Amino acid sequence: AVLSIGSELTSGRTQDSNAAFLASEVRRLGGRVDEIRSLPDDLPAMARALRELARGRSLLLVTGGLGPTEDDRTRQALARASGRPLRLHRPSLEAIQARFRRAGRAMTANNRLQALFPAGALPLPNAQGTAPGIRMRLASCRVLAFPGVPSEMRAMWEPCRGGVARELGRPPLLLRRLHVFGLAESEVDRRMRRLMAPGRDPEAGLTVSDAVITVSLTSSSPARIAGDEKALRRLLGRAVFGVDGEGLAAAVVARLRRRRRTLALAESATGGLISHLVTEVPGASKVLWEGRAVYTVAAKRRLGVPAPLLKRHGPVSEAVTRELASRIRRVSGATYGLAVTGLAGPSGGTRKTPVGTCFLALAGPRGLQAARRIFLLGERALVKRRAALAALDFLRLSVGG
Amino acid sequence: AVLSIGSELTSGRTQDSNAAFLASEVRRLGGRVDEIRSLPDDLPAMARALRELARGRSLLLVTGGLGPTEDDRTRQALARASGRPLRLHRPSLEAIQARFRRAGRAMTANNRLQALFPAGALPLPNAQGTAPGIRMRLASCRVLAFPGVPSEMRAMWEPCRGGVARELGRPPLLLRRLHVFGLAESEVDRRMRRLMAPGRDPEAGLTVSDAVITVSLTSSSPARIAGDEKALRRLLGRAVFGVDGEGLAAAVVARLRRRRRTLALAESATGGLISHLVTEVPGASKVLWEGRAVYTVAAKRRLGVPAPLLKRHGPVSEAVTRELASRIRRVSGATYGLAVTGLAGPSGGTRKTPVGTCFLALAGPRGLQAARRIFLLGERALVKRRAALAALDFLRLSVGG
Repeated sequence: AVLSIGSELTSGRTQDSNAAFLASEVRRLGGRVDEIRSLPDDLPAMARALRELARGRSLLLVTGGLGPTEDDRTRQALARASGRPLRLHRPSLEAIQARFRRAGRAMTANNRLQALFPAGALPLPNAQGTAPGIRMRLASCRVLAFPGVPSEMRAMWEPCRGGVARELGRPPLLLRRLHVFGLAESEVDRRMRRLMAPGRDPEAGLTVSDAVITVSLTSSSPARIAGDEKALRRLLGRAVFGVDGEGLAAAVVARLRRRRRTLALAESATGGLISHLVTEVPGASKVLWEGRAVYTVAAKRRLGVPAPLLKRHGPVSEAVTRELASRIRRVSGATYGLAVTGLAGPSGGTRKTPVGTCFLALAGPRGLQAARRIFLLGERALVKRRAALAALDFLRLSVGG
Repeated sequence: AVLSIGSELTSGRTQDSNAAFLASEVRRLGGRVDEIRSLPDDLPAMARALRELARGRSLLLVTGGLGPTEDDRTRQALARASGRPLRLHRPSLEAIQARFRRAGRAMTANNRLQALFPAGALPLPNAQGTAPGIRMRLASCRVLAFPGVPSEMRAMWEPCRGGVARELGRPPLLLRRLHVFGLAESEVDRRMRRLMAPGRDPEAGLTVSDAVITVSLTSSSPARIAGDEKALRRLLGRAVFGVDGEGLAAAVVARLRRRRRTLALAESATGGLISHLVTEVPGASKVLWEGRAVYTVAAKRRLGVPAPLLKRHGPVSEAVTRELASRIRRVSGATYGLAVTGLAGPSGGTRKTPVGTCFLALAGPRGLQAARRIFLLGERALVKRRAALAALDFLRLSVGG
């Protein structure tokens, strides 16, 4: 079972993403979560639920309630549910103190609470925050308690996977994800229908996020997964850009590095988002020569776009976008210059150039390589995001293998 | 309580957005959800949980398990929990048949199941799908069961609000959120402890996301909320940057616009993220004169940072950051030049400049206004994000009112 603690969850202020993450992890390890529960920061209710959920189960995963504040009560609830007193764990206290020293801040008295553990429990180290997790047993059930901050919880879960797998004693399921860009969901669904028959091994699933379609294959057999991956790559062709944790920007950076190519960006509509996505990838400094957010006409002029061109075609136009791509390439000395202009809205649209119109242009070693007009639907942030992904994909397909 | 039914939830394939929606609705009507539970499509477990959750509560909201397939078992579970048989509800059957006729499709036999209701229950009409909801009582608890499709559930919830409000018999609650940057969670907690006493009105809560701390005040009295907001602003001072839906970038853009100031960015460590955050705000083009991602030494040189300075201090240094801020301000003609350098990792750290070291510098109308060294913990993406927020906040505090 998974138990999520926090009044922000039961009041609906925050959506619980931790429980879904942990449930899918347990599934990948061959286990099965048969209940997810969220409770407010109410000590008696928490202690009762811990006892209830531990009964007859081999594993109980808890998130939240380990912070330094008044209403963080998971450690007390675990103490109460197990009937054991809370004890100070000196190495944990020292780790918390060291953390505050490094950050040059004073530790408050309530951070000391985070070094208390039910007798017999062990800490789960937390490299990213002050709250260590808790590892203990309630009767015959193994309990792992993590902080509620998703990034901390995920990092702390990683080293627990091996122990949990042994506890569950089942062959782990393997998961392979293929990421697809540039095809509609219904088209991907149509092409891979045969692989999605109910009861088939691997089990195939399809999710969409921000126009990126992800196909998941789950099986305990590596050979079956490899077979279906091969079939999928045949069915979907160049639209498959990456696997597992690889995003579109990472795929582009990897290709550019492989071919020893470099990149410069002139972003109008996307306002720095492509540059942000590229610099999320470790090693991006080997590839990204320069990025410019040229949101205003003056910034475009400074990059060298002639005033008459801007006047004749308007800042959101193929001609200006081509010029931006060539100019940023020349100025930076990068192999490729990629430019995006567009109208993300909400205002500023005209009949000729409605909100959602975007232009992409790429200048490369053989001069201007390509330009494209796309039309995107959705609100401002979505148009911006999709334009950035479309530009990255445009680059990916132009750079090749 | 809220009960969500579906194996896709407990396997982690789907995140439960319905429960958070319903919990926040109940809260707005003056009620309080004290448990959220998710179960797989397992009939005995569902019937047991329905009985358990109805006990001692005035309202139980159920979502999911009302579809036409084999594993949709919510109606059977409600029948079993109430000890009443399932009966065919003819008007519901006719509505389902009419729906299929209108769509020009053949009705399958299992759609007939959707017209079965526990004796004494009433249907909740569903204008968007084939599955009607169920309204009934389990002992003294009112139960409302909705389909799991979020859009259908939300549309069907709407007409139930009045009845639920009467059932709860309480005045609706107002919510005010204050966003805080630059203080540790434990420090905010310490300062506002008095306002967080259990049972106090307004009820105060604290959540953290990406180093932004949000204080929520909930009360049925606008005057009490206003009073506590005033007290909080006194306790937290300038660390409060925005309210309700306003993010840090929006707060900065609003201030700059109010004072008719403009901004240019030279981003090394944050690689375009600040520019991206600023251009998420509608009207950012009035403020952001230019953004440059100057990730490489060559890009810093092109902006005019002298080679000897780079060589003497290294690219991640206060001296270079100050120079970047002054240069981008001069080149762009903006009121402010904001620059960030730093080491986001994972590699590249030295003893003098460990991973996580960031420098911020701001050049303004009176020359270099401020520079600051900060130290951030966490993985690459987190360091980058926190550096961007710290830079925006640095700018906010420097711009003033």
